[in-house]
Amino acid sequence: MRLLDLIAKKRDGARHSPEELDFIARAAADGSAPDYQLSAWLMAVVCRGMSEPETAAFTRAMARSGKTLGLGKTARPKADKHSTGGVGDGVSLALAPLAAACGLTVPMMSGRGLGHTGGTLDKLEAIPGMKVRLGLGAIRAQLKSVHACMFGQTEELAPADRTLYALRDATATVPAQPLIVASILSKKFAEELDALVLDVKVGSGAIFEDAPSARALARALVKTSKSLGMPTVAVLTAMSQPLGRFVGNALEVRQALEILSGDERAADYLECLLALGGWMLALSGLTADAERGAELMRAKIRDGSGLRVLRELVAAQGGDARVVDEPDRLPQARLSRAVAASRDGWLSRLDARGVGRAAVLLGAGRAFKEQALDYGAGIELARKVGDRVRRGETIALLRAADRARLDAGEAAVRRAAEISAAPPRRGKTVLEIVR
Amino acid sequence: MRLLDLIAKKRDGARHSPEELDFIARAAADGSAPDYQLSAWLMAVVCRGMSEPETAAFTRAMARSGKTLGLGKTARPKADKHSTGGVGDGVSLALAPLAAACGLTVPMMSGRGLGHTGGTLDKLEAIPGMKVRLGLGAIRAQLKSVHACMFGQTEELAPADRTLYALRDATATVPAQPLIVASILSKKFAEELDALVLDVKVGSGAIFEDAPSARALARALVKTSKSLGMPTVAVLTAMSQPLGRFVGNALEVRQALEILSGDERAADYLECLLALGGWMLALSGLTADAERGAELMRAKIRDGSGLRVLRELVAAQGGDARVVDEPDRLPQARLSRAVAASRDGWLSRLDARGVGRAAVLLGAGRAFKEQALDYGAGIELARKVGDRVRRGETIALLRAADRARLDAGEAAVRRAAEISAAPPRRGKTVLEIVR
Repeated sequence: MRLLDLIAKKRDGARHSPEELDFIARAAADGSAPDYQLSAWLMAVVCRGMSEPETAAFTRAMARSGKTLGLGKTARPKADKHSTGGVGDGVSLALAPLAAACGLTVPMMSGRGLGHTGGTLDKLEAIPGMKVRLGLGAIRAQLKSVHACMFGQTEELAPADRTLYALRDATATVPAQPLIVASILSKKFAEELDALVLDVKVGSGAIFEDAPSARALARALVKTSKSLGMPTVAVLTAMSQPLGRFVGNALEVRQALEILSGDERAADYLECLLALGGWMLALSGLTADAERGAELMRAKIRDGSGLRVLRELVAAQGGDARVVDEPDRLPQARLSRAVAASRDGWLSRLDARGVGRAAVLLGAGRAFKEQALDYGAGIELARKVGDRVRRGETIALLRAADRARLDAGEAAVRRAAEISAAPPRRGKTVLEIVR
Repeated sequence: MRLLDLIAKKRDGARHSPEELDFIARAAADGSAPDYQLSAWLMAVVCRGMSEPETAAFTRAMARSGKTLGLGKTARPKADKHSTGGVGDGVSLALAPLAAACGLTVPMMSGRGLGHTGGTLDKLEAIPGMKVRLGLGAIRAQLKSVHACMFGQTEELAPADRTLYALRDATATVPAQPLIVASILSKKFAEELDALVLDVKVGSGAIFEDAPSARALARALVKTSKSLGMPTVAVLTAMSQPLGRFVGNALEVRQALEILSGDERAADYLECLLALGGWMLALSGLTADAERGAELMRAKIRDGSGLRVLRELVAAQGGDARVVDEPDRLPQARLSRAVAASRDGWLSRLDARGVGRAAVLLGAGRAFKEQALDYGAGIELARKVGDRVRRGETIALLRAADRARLDAGEAAVRRAAEISAAPPRRGKTVLEIVR
């Protein structure tokens, strides 16, 4: 088999056999395929597409290009969650320990932030000492002791995806549904999960701003994942405004601690967390349905066992576990500034993408890959869409290292926010379940 | 401007501006663009196409990516010919000196053979001592003294095409009309020609086997070339059987010498030569029309001035000019074998591609890029399609270095040839003129 012939085949719109997709994934993983051939093939896939069976076969091929998690038969079901990414979406930080407290084993493979969305790994690293680049041996050991582990993509799991993902980013071949589906699922398939819950965001802060596009991706993900034998559900959730009360790395750790301590002010965050966790438990068979799964999660918040697992998880990954009970030990930005309402009314818009960009300007995110982060920087949202505001009241509190950043962040937040004379419709957070 | 954005633009089917195409050509020429980005863009062009104005702008951009021939205003018009490639198509070897003898300056940029078609540069190198890798200075000097020069693509003329052509070969992005057109014409545009004649081959031995596809390419080439200000004509010529009486490197040099000496046995070769040269002269304004151009060419064969210029050209490029008058000085294969007719009848088929492959098996061509050539190897065609044959008569004489090659070549020639009981229709060589 020659990669050149496979490129020509896809260029001409033909379908690949599973053997051909195995060949491509192996060639990407072991470095035997030159980048320029892989990128030509990727562009041919973007232009000509892949069928559902091809997408499933390619997902399996990428998963097989490296090792699997290899926990073997465990007493606990293994479950993971994947989010397509949003602003203030630090749900993983609370979900992983809470799901473990409910009886699941949770290998949570996460990514870094780029552009207006944050990344779970960056948020974890806001905790002093926390390590997220773990080898397969360390991950396995921690999953046996703590039952939850949060780590970055290793070189061992789905290495073909690592190579292709980096190339896609550099060759404008990211937006192709089969490639998105295969990239997400190959890593999960390598984790040998008993249950997978996908959080597909919809709105200005998400990849897809409209529900039909998000639903199409959700359906493709669920269909492919189930065809590979993984019990899977996708939850469409709102991302027109940021999730929860905080945007920023250390601030989102604080958000998770608040929630795990029983503080329910971040109602949308809690709604999202319970829906995702509830489905993880239901799909795994630990509860009869998602509602009872959500109830079990609430119970594990109340009895403090979610916080306990988080404490163990942070300690196991080299982090300072004292932050769990003393959040002020988290990095804090030097300066802060309140953004006040310019008139009376209701907060009618708090554009997720705009607030995400403001957080980048404050130092919390990356405009380019190598940029260093200010873990303490970010935004505390004192008001959310639908809330009553009075002139002069604080809508948002900005945190950054210097005044120039505060100026830039303030301007961006002001552009993202709108106050109306009449109360707006308050939307739900969980929009739809795709099974 | 960022190449990544331009890839995304073409991926989404949008049109490039001339400035964007300049950017891409410059980035390909100066090495600043990574191969994987260029190949993704090439595949996007294959899938999404380029408009006629884009193709013209890209041709100009590639020509501008390096130096031009820079002869300035010359007393003689500058004319060149390009062939899309065929079997036995050594017409350039006779055409360049003959056109110069008729009063043209002929900068003839040529290529190497790959697969079943030969390359003019390989045929020239069959002449002992002949150099075809010339710098721009040497080319200019020779064009002023001999008025004809035959050389390979230099690093100075259209360097973007060199980079992209190599990549296209390795990424299955060759078959895209806009890329084919821009590649061919950019090199000619850099030669600053007063006239260009394109020989677009049709038949089993050509890129396009059917006339409509060949005609479409011819029209696109002529339209783009004229929009760039180059007087251009395309001649569609038959390539269902090999052209002339010989296939092989030294053998095709011999063919050119025969023709320039007035031997008219290779009637199809002569027809092709006179049509192409006639149009070069007519387009340049040296003769009133192509017919009178062909007459002038015949006159320059009769008075021996075509041979004289070839003698000068070979000497100027370091070759042994004695071969022009003593063809036996050309390399000869050690062994030969006659392929005899198996029955009485008419030769009804002599498949060009099949004969081309036979020549490769005999050692005259390359199955892969680095393969060394046996200059003396090849095939002398004693009969062409339409000729009467009797059982036991020689159809073809094979030449190679060893018996294994002769065996393989003979089998291939036998597969390519067919004898019928009734005489077949004898086709024309020059099929159509596209202006």
